[in-house]
Amino acid sequence: MIEQIAQKARQASVITASLSTDLKNHALQAVAQALQAQQDQIITANHEDLEQAQADKLAPALLKRLKFDQAKLQDAVAGIESLISLPDPIGTTISATELDQGLELYRVTCPIGVLGVVFESRPDALVQISALALKSGNAVLLKGGREAVNTNRALAEVIHDAAVTAGLPQGWMALLETRQDVTAMLALDEYIDLVIPRGSNAFVKHVMDNTRIPVLGHADGICHVFVDTNADLEKALNIAFDSKCQYPAVCNAMETLLVDARIAKTFLPKIKAAYDQVGVELRGDQRTQEIIDCKSASDQDWRTEYNDLILSIKIVDGLDDAVDHINTYGSGHTDAIVTENEDHARKFMALVDSGNVFWNCSTRYSDGFRYGLGAEVGISTNKIHARGPVGLEGLTIYKWKLIGQGHIVADYAGPNAKPFTHKKLNKNCPIDNP
Amino acid sequence: MIEQIAQKARQASVITASLSTDLKNHALQAVAQALQAQQDQIITANHEDLEQAQADKLAPALLKRLKFDQAKLQDAVAGIESLISLPDPIGTTISATELDQGLELYRVTCPIGVLGVVFESRPDALVQISALALKSGNAVLLKGGREAVNTNRALAEVIHDAAVTAGLPQGWMALLETRQDVTAMLALDEYIDLVIPRGSNAFVKHVMDNTRIPVLGHADGICHVFVDTNADLEKALNIAFDSKCQYPAVCNAMETLLVDARIAKTFLPKIKAAYDQVGVELRGDQRTQEIIDCKSASDQDWRTEYNDLILSIKIVDGLDDAVDHINTYGSGHTDAIVTENEDHARKFMALVDSGNVFWNCSTRYSDGFRYGLGAEVGISTNKIHARGPVGLEGLTIYKWKLIGQGHIVADYAGPNAKPFTHKKLNKNCPIDNP
Repeated sequence: MIEQIAQKARQASVITASLSTDLKNHALQAVAQALQAQQDQIITANHEDLEQAQADKLAPALLKRLKFDQAKLQDAVAGIESLISLPDPIGTTISATELDQGLELYRVTCPIGVLGVVFESRPDALVQISALALKSGNAVLLKGGREAVNTNRALAEVIHDAAVTAGLPQGWMALLETRQDVTAMLALDEYIDLVIPRGSNAFVKHVMDNTRIPVLGHADGICHVFVDTNADLEKALNIAFDSKCQYPAVCNAMETLLVDARIAKTFLPKIKAAYDQVGVELRGDQRTQEIIDCKSASDQDWRTEYNDLILSIKIVDGLDDAVDHINTYGSGHTDAIVTENEDHARKFMALVDSGNVFWNCSTRYSDGFRYGLGAEVGISTNKIHARGPVGLEGLTIYKWKLIGQGHIVADYAGPNAKPFTHKKLNKNCPIDNP
Repeated sequence: MIEQIAQKARQASVITASLSTDLKNHALQAVAQALQAQQDQIITANHEDLEQAQADKLAPALLKRLKFDQAKLQDAVAGIESLISLPDPIGTTISATELDQGLELYRVTCPIGVLGVVFESRPDALVQISALALKSGNAVLLKGGREAVNTNRALAEVIHDAAVTAGLPQGWMALLETRQDVTAMLALDEYIDLVIPRGSNAFVKHVMDNTRIPVLGHADGICHVFVDTNADLEKALNIAFDSKCQYPAVCNAMETLLVDARIAKTFLPKIKAAYDQVGVELRGDQRTQEIIDCKSASDQDWRTEYNDLILSIKIVDGLDDAVDHINTYGSGHTDAIVTENEDHARKFMALVDSGNVFWNCSTRYSDGFRYGLGAEVGISTNKIHARGPVGLEGLTIYKWKLIGQGHIVADYAGPNAKPFTHKKLNKNCPIDNP
């Protein structure tokens, strides 16, 4: 069953890869209109989910995420409209080279193919991800939260059908509904090219361990702020406070504060006063505990993503020690240095092996919307393909298109081999998508 | 033991990532000089391997690949020198955006980290891969063919030590020697970022099935040439002959010839005459067998990489049928159309889901050297990160570098949120590697 859905998505992906920009934008417009036209039906479905969730006594935070009302629908429509205004990421010539007279090589962006996305309970994620897939010419299998099953069904039907009416192939998107469906999907490396799991660390790791399909995701967000000996203490206070407290439940919030031993006595009491006002629980290493009153941090604390108003603090002996701690215990997500010393900033940003390395600003900026990517598929702590916040571009790859006039390799081999010219060309591939 | 080697490589990779272009090129020069200065020792080690291989009665083709004489060493040195002349792939600003006044975001290329490369019996591959790793700032673990153990040890020692003397960190490259070492390496996803297996299909698949580390490689090279109804038959003859016969033992050689039914009667007898002259075994579908005398092709033939003077032939009903066959049975490597019809070429190149799609030229062009990439790490049939021939650029990724003046996210949230400017900047990251 899932195999048939995936096979159909694979067939559809060949078509979606070759759609024109106009057709894709037209389809996105049709999706936006259909969501508005059929909002009653969608909101009714959401009410069913909300009632069931209340009966199941879901936590208020989860109920809030599950809710899909007119305001959320308008936000989703606005998201689609901003996506329409973004340039088409497909069909861009990345490089052009003349190999020899009349033999020209072009590297041109194209979709990845079929995406498998597993997302959390927010139904708006379904709208966003399917719109991103459509714009980037990918087919997509989606699995949302169990609690949102009725909302997701309603949304998926509206989006799929509106896009198909506008010219997309049947089956370009499909909804999976159970954990078993996801397990089945992870085995279908023949049809699915990239899995994007969004959710708990445990779930992302589970996915990574159970598929041959490449996985784009991040397992942990253990972010650091390092207050250097040359820090402006005012900036350091603001950044350390914002990175922890502005929204502690997310992956780009700071989990460990590193403080240079030379300024720890000045800095730590001040930041503790700020944290105390909002009730941040502090866990310090031995030297930190000698300066401020706090709990004791264990080795396990350095590896923990609290996602809460809890912070571990360590005093380090200079920049190298800080870099070492981050590269040992961090998760490669986002790490910041506060310093007025440009050499220290340069060294930190070169040596810290994370997707996002910041100087004098909060770790909380690490986000596709704030980066101006338009929309975000997720944040990647992978070391290949895409790193940090992933927007449309992360859903693309490229093809090499070689255009000749009957050229054969035999002419470029042996004692009378013709040489290659390898001349850079400054033009776009003449053989583009329709 | 392997874990310690990998851990050391990981530590070294932090340093190699931040080396200047000058230092890396100087180190490559030192490696080239050391290889020449110590060529006697290397060639003596190779003699030991050759003697053992002869005693083990290795096939002449393998002996030829194993041989590392003065000529091969000169080629390797020339390869290093051409690598020195290539631009540094690290530290390039890919994009620059002002998020707000004084808050600037840069996306800058950086190395992937630690590579694990398993290569075939040619010792020259060791020189090439370690030089590519050095130029791209990656640390690398290498495992060569068992037959070449003495040559590889000698080469690895010379290369490692010359580079370390020139400023690279100890352990930036290391040689693994046994299959057990490779198995151990595949489990070390904590230290190794990318595995590049070169070798038999069975081996590449084995690697993919036995690691959580991303794998860059290609399992099969099942390449097609489609002779369209609008083909120039002279070009079609040349291309079909070259794609199969110019060097049949390699992954970019054609394995299946697809011929439009409307020109099959004209074309097939001519191409058969050409193939017969060099003894190509032909296996055709039913319709092909009605036109020319050949063996019968089974469904399994469409999935087989012969790597030999054997060719399967199928008559198809037009372009869509050809595309369908390729997307069903192909391996996503390299597929060519021969046609004078630009619309057919456009459609073929858009719909065939392969890393390399060619128009009126031989599949044999699919190669990093011919593409002008300078050097090739391998050919990827992955759908993410890098596709087709992979050169230096495939060994890089990027970091997001955000530079502020004490900026915090709280100012951009809530009722009085400041807006982001998201203005494209036309400048390079001012905080570059040393």
